[in-house]
Amino acid sequence: MDDKDAIIVGLAELRDKIEHNDFNFSRALEDIHMNIESALTNLIGKPASRLHTARSRNDQVATDFRLYVRDTIDHLMQQIGDLQRAFLKRAEQEFDTVMPGFTHLQTAQPVTLGHHLLAYVEMLSRDYHRFKDARVRLNVCPLGAAALAGTSFPIDREMTAKALGFDRPAANSLDAVSDRDFVIETLSAASICAMHLSRFAEELVIWSTPQFGFVSLSDRFSTGSSIMPQKRNPDAAELIRAKIGRIFGAQVAMTMVMKGLPMTYSKDMQEDKEGAFDAFDTLSLSLAAMKGMVSDMSFNREKMAAAAGSGFSTATDLADWLVRTLDMPFRNAHHVTGEIVALAEKQKCALEQLSLAQMQGIEPKITNAIFDVLGVQNSVQSRTSFGGTAPKNVKAQIAFWQKILST
Amino acid sequence: MDDKDAIIVGLAELRDKIEHNDFNFSRALEDIHMNIESALTNLIGKPASRLHTARSRNDQVATDFRLYVRDTIDHLMQQIGDLQRAFLKRAEQEFDTVMPGFTHLQTAQPVTLGHHLLAYVEMLSRDYHRFKDARVRLNVCPLGAAALAGTSFPIDREMTAKALGFDRPAANSLDAVSDRDFVIETLSAASICAMHLSRFAEELVIWSTPQFGFVSLSDRFSTGSSIMPQKRNPDAAELIRAKIGRIFGAQVAMTMVMKGLPMTYSKDMQEDKEGAFDAFDTLSLSLAAMKGMVSDMSFNREKMAAAAGSGFSTATDLADWLVRTLDMPFRNAHHVTGEIVALAEKQKCALEQLSLAQMQGIEPKITNAIFDVLGVQNSVQSRTSFGGTAPKNVKAQIAFWQKILST
Amino acid sequence: MDDKDAIIVGLAELRDKIEHNDFNFSRALEDIHMNIESALTNLIGKPASRLHTARSRNDQVATDFRLYVRDTIDHLMQQIGDLQRAFLKRAEQEFDTVMPGFTHLQTAQPVTLGHHLLAYVEMLSRDYHRFKDARVRLNVCPLGAAALAGTSFPIDREMTAKALGFDRPAANSLDAVSDRDFVIETLSAASICAMHLSRFAEELVIWSTPQFGFVSLSDRFSTGSSIMPQKRNPDAAELIRAKIGRIFGAQVAMTMVMKGLPMTYSKDMQEDKEGAFDAFDTLSLSLAAMKGMVSDMSFNREKMAAAAGSGFSTATDLADWLVRTLDMPFRNAHHVTGEIVALAEKQKCALEQLSLAQMQGIEPKITNAIFDVLGVQNSVQSRTSFGGTAPKNVKAQIAFWQKILST
Amino acid sequence: MDDKDAIIVGLAELRDKIEHNDFNFSRALEDIHMNIESALTNLIGKPASRLHTARSRNDQVATDFRLYVRDTIDHLMQQIGDLQRAFLKRAEQEFDTVMPGFTHLQTAQPVTLGHHLLAYVEMLSRDYHRFKDARVRLNVCPLGAAALAGTSFPIDREMTAKALGFDRPAANSLDAVSDRDFVIETLSAASICAMHLSRFAEELVIWSTPQFGFVSLSDRFSTGSSIMPQKRNPDAAELIRAKIGRIFGAQVAMTMVMKGLPMTYSKDMQEDKEGAFDAFDTLSLSLAAMKGMVSDMSFNREKMAAAAGSGFSTATDLADWLVRTLDMPFRNAHHVTGEIVALAEKQKCALEQLSLAQMQGIEPKITNAIFDVLGVQNSVQSRTSFGGTAPKNVKAQIAFWQKILST
Repeated sequence: MDDKDAIIVGLAELRDKIEHNDFNFSRALEDIHMNIESALTNLIGKPASRLHTARSRNDQVATDFRLYVRDTIDHLMQQIGDLQRAFLKRAEQEFDTVMPGFTHLQTAQPVTLGHHLLAYVEMLSRDYHRFKDARVRLNVCPLGAAALAGTSFPIDREMTAKALGFDRPAANSLDAVSDRDFVIETLSAASICAMHLSRFAEELVIWSTPQFGFVSLSDRFSTGSSIMPQKRNPDAAELIRAKIGRIFGAQVAMTMVMKGLPMTYSKDMQEDKEGAFDAFDTLSLSLAAMKGMVSDMSFNREKMAAAAGSGFSTATDLADWLVRTLDMPFRNAHHVTGEIVALAEKQKCALEQLSLAQMQGIEPKITNAIFDVLGVQNSVQSRTSFGGTAPKNVKAQIAFWQKILST
Repeated sequence: MDDKDAIIVGLAELRDKIEHNDFNFSRALEDIHMNIESALTNLIGKPASRLHTARSRNDQVATDFRLYVRDTIDHLMQQIGDLQRAFLKRAEQEFDTVMPGFTHLQTAQPVTLGHHLLAYVEMLSRDYHRFKDARVRLNVCPLGAAALAGTSFPIDREMTAKALGFDRPAANSLDAVSDRDFVIETLSAASICAMHLSRFAEELVIWSTPQFGFVSLSDRFSTGSSIMPQKRNPDAAELIRAKIGRIFGAQVAMTMVMKGLPMTYSKDMQEDKEGAFDAFDTLSLSLAAMKGMVSDMSFNREKMAAAAGSGFSTATDLADWLVRTLDMPFRNAHHVTGEIVALAEKQKCALEQLSLAQMQGIEPKITNAIFDVLGVQNSVQSRTSFGGTAPKNVKAQIAFWQKILST
Repeated sequence: MDDKDAIIVGLAELRDKIEHNDFNFSRALEDIHMNIESALTNLIGKPASRLHTARSRNDQVATDFRLYVRDTIDHLMQQIGDLQRAFLKRAEQEFDTVMPGFTHLQTAQPVTLGHHLLAYVEMLSRDYHRFKDARVRLNVCPLGAAALAGTSFPIDREMTAKALGFDRPAANSLDAVSDRDFVIETLSAASICAMHLSRFAEELVIWSTPQFGFVSLSDRFSTGSSIMPQKRNPDAAELIRAKIGRIFGAQVAMTMVMKGLPMTYSKDMQEDKEGAFDAFDTLSLSLAAMKGMVSDMSFNREKMAAAAGSGFSTATDLADWLVRTLDMPFRNAHHVTGEIVALAEKQKCALEQLSLAQMQGIEPKITNAIFDVLGVQNSVQSRTSFGGTAPKNVKAQIAFWQKILST
Repeated sequence: MDDKDAIIVGLAELRDKIEHNDFNFSRALEDIHMNIESALTNLIGKPASRLHTARSRNDQVATDFRLYVRDTIDHLMQQIGDLQRAFLKRAEQEFDTVMPGFTHLQTAQPVTLGHHLLAYVEMLSRDYHRFKDARVRLNVCPLGAAALAGTSFPIDREMTAKALGFDRPAANSLDAVSDRDFVIETLSAASICAMHLSRFAEELVIWSTPQFGFVSLSDRFSTGSSIMPQKRNPDAAELIRAKIGRIFGAQVAMTMVMKGLPMTYSKDMQEDKEGAFDAFDTLSLSLAAMKGMVSDMSFNREKMAAAAGSGFSTATDLADWLVRTLDMPFRNAHHVTGEIVALAEKQKCALEQLSLAQMQGIEPKITNAIFDVLGVQNSVQSRTSFGGTAPKNVKAQIAFWQKILST
């Protein structure tokens, strides 16, 4: 058995030991590299002293960390897909449920809940692709850059790169050992994803207040009070809302570490790991919790529909009808609508509760057809432009995503 | 002339006025939308009241800002290419110039200056592709999402998207008006790019000290003292080093703004512009200044070579020779090298100034061939593994990049 | 007239010119220092060439910027006091108004609105003192540190420090020209203050939804829709909520700039101004807007009271009564309360709508006195421990603050 | 024994168990509060059920965390004093050692090393007082605020506040449970302190390059290479330089968490601990390492002196002499100096190596006394203005600090 084979067999044995928690790591040996080499020497003797040929801790640690971040990206992409599927499933159930569409947290126009949920599928899709792009840029192999200058040994970097699943070896040895872009870029993708989660978390916190009452979170994702049965604290949603702090904090930390560092490896870079580990674990936990919450929560359709219909939320529909049907210029239509709403407000009734005569008193050309657009159901059904909230659009979007997300 | 044509002609006229600074913006009209509509009404009368049909400020401002950021990305990508070309040109001139390769800012091994400069071409290439990926994700058109719910007018969103150079219309109206990912992602790409610039800026500050003396910055990019002619303050490099602050600050700001915002548009999002404008302008200025500095600076090859040869920087070469030529295990070679270096240190001479006999006193199998690897020139020439610092590798990389960067 | 007097007279004239916008600044003269010296030379001739004696741009710019930040602090402290007075005035009017006290945005216990408003007076008081402490640390004078080493001229730094309102001259010339702590510390105080404002802003956004309906913002601080009269977008509150982004962004930027800068002055520090100017102006604007909003807004006491009473919000009062009156251990009291609440829930009535007999069915020792604690008014009145929400406590706190805040 | 005494005795016993690692914490009991109460019940039975009277987890956790942060502040203040003493001791030894004073990392004027070291004593003094001020603001006691509204039990909050070492009870119960300013403010003080450490760390990294050679770090704080004996990697300095990243990252995280949180307690706030623990531990470690490094490092006075004298670094002294002795206006003196320096540069000699005749050829009034100011020793001795670098000033400052820092 030559040295190479001895090393391969020895390392395999050590891997098994580590996997079975049967490996004694020694602090005195300083780091993982020396622990392994020392154990290998104990195991196979002299051939172990060839282990470190043509390599350095600098290129090894850069390679190892890329492998870790790559695995993490793969896992997070899987989880993002899972969460998209959870949203999608609920969107299917609620494709025509009417709820208020908010701007400034004020009811603006009725929309469908399915449409609202699909907005998060869109956001998560961007997250997915950001991770995917980061993975492509990450996936070059530093191994063989050695300490910083490359090596004079006739090594085959293409081979080791392929063997480790990289697309290609890094083309510049100095850059290879001093590049930590992949950490920052992946943290940035994680931060934006966490920001999306924080937005839905905020909605859940607001929607689960007694005042809104749009949603009930399951026991798994909220905490009750033994003496106040109606108080359900949306703990999980609040935690997810908060988690962007530590994820983005890790990105700030790493950006600050790399600022103004001269080439090539500096010990400062050792700070790349702990924060990243924590940030990726945190995002993973948040995605899992959000998926559970989305799957478990139950919606109060009556409350949503009632809220959607309040506040003359179909005034825009009325104005659009005037433009579309009476060929009235938009600004005039806007003016007429304002008068009709004022009348309804004075009568303390909804728009659809005004009589045709009352409306004609303001604009004689209005016909009975106007009532087709004043109800919230009619309103959402009319938004059929591409990307609009009409249930049939929502159905089409659901079909689109089902195709993409089926696995 | 129908209303549409009147509007088109009128808007063209207003555009000309604006371009000739001949348009009176009125604060009383609140925003750009109302200023334009009001001016159009003055110009073409009644048809102007149809201008706002099937659109809203919410989708318009989202569209406009995407157009701005897209233009900015295109411009920054161009500038990144320019800076890469500037580095590349200098790398050509210095493909075999020997300098110290640093780890921990301590001389580790000799490298070639051309190789060092190409490391920045690599970094900038990642920056280029990050902007490119961000542009792909950005390039969907919100127009037609209207206020938030889509519209009941039979509009053709595919057509407007294409007309404005977008790849497709945004698929979800709620997401379309509340998405600011493209700002944050582009700021993130800008921050990482600024981090790269800060690293070279730091090197320039250190290299232009009298102690290092590796580089002289031109008068355009440094400031002298009338009474201390040798003091040349590397002002431009220092400013570039600092600029990551405000660029990353803008990213922090925008991430903080978006954290926990419920759907869809909230006024908070109005904060998306000023910080982004400033950050992108700052990066653009930094890229331009760095390009100028890189093109103008002159290197002191003697100082670099002298520094490269100090500190037994070819000890690794000696050890590698022992492994390669005598088939000595790496750890043993390391040990022998340590003894030879200790001898040189004691003799106060460089490694190549030891006699063969002296070295054989430590390891008898050493032959005259050892001297081939002890000089810094020989050292760098030996690093021929892919990505290594050998001049011939540098030349190959230069050829590679010339092909990619020729326009 | 000696040189000194000529300089003094000349500078006074230049100051007047500047104040009357009658001074031509020239970019060619590079900076403010050379513009002044050049203008002074034109005005008074030869004595002007003594202007720069014993000083340097480095100590001058450090001094100037401290003067600016000090003025800013004074102004912000005044504005914080104004906002406290605005909150205090509203607290007086609402000292016994009952509203829901929230944890997790869920009704937890009834509190008084006056108490809630005073919580912000407390936060602002900490902000006030943070600025005050920052001012003490800032208030040392760099003038006379010259370029970095001090000067050999027999200057009186105590005198110039006092003349400029500083407490003392900076004791170390190197530190004097390279210290920018005062910027970062003041930005930090500003960020925390902006965070407090963002919290009340969030409450206003939520409270002004139709679902909550606790507050109506005046027209000055919200924007209506011409066709949806009930939609009032809380624009000012949303903007204030967002502004922490750019204020904290400026702090991040400056911290990043100073990270790892060697002594003493480096050009990087020139980045200290623009971000700080913008951040302080932004906080000033936010404080002013918040003060206006607080003064103008009107509360809907009925909606608040109704919300305060829902959800068995006085269950804790019931439990406390059992402990206090029947000497029941806390955990047992908790258990009994749970049973009573469950009964009320089953009967679909409020706690105070249960009969004594019904409650005695669960715990026989309960007496009629129980009804004293079950109403929300009684509940808040009972919280008389120091710092508690009882109206009489609120009154005492109002008196306390009136004394401190009267000017 | 009444219930109170039983509880006191029981809790004391539990504390002992915990201190002896003899307490079984159960995850099933959810949190620390329930673990303690359950163990107490097992121990003393019924009286334990009174433990939770008049308190809530909300006020308890706020109180506990304040106690922790207060202890941390006390410890960090002690460590800052220790580091100041370490700098002071070295300053004493080097009070008249001449080194180059840098601006833009270029030699500007000679200064004394003692003066340079004292600059850090100044910075650390500001850090000390920032922590001290934060401690004052922190030191109010939330206990008794209960869940959020205060309590109806007749508790004595003054007493519990004093017993726990607080200055006073918090005056507003809502603020008491929702205030996390003390975490952010303490993190801000920690970040600024870490920034100061990063500056000296950067100087150490640069000074320990062979090119500068100003300082040698001891083996404890640097890592050698077995085959390159002159390569000493300044690992500890690099790590300290980097640590500001995670410390400031924690501040970013917490600021982001608190942004826009409505009153009072929200689960988001649970994020206040881990990041703060890590940040404070990190600063503590950095202070300890820096103290060790400062005490251990050895300076190369020859290299420093030689560097201080190069580059006509006393040109300013010459100009000042012309002003002071010949009563020449500053600008004229500047001009004359420029000519003399140009002559020296042409002659390739130092300023003090020019002959009197040569200097008089440029300015006839120059006398032999000029030579008193041209050497670096004379230069630093002349900077006697308060705060200047003259050795006698340094001595006075050392005496000043010794008085303050003696304990």
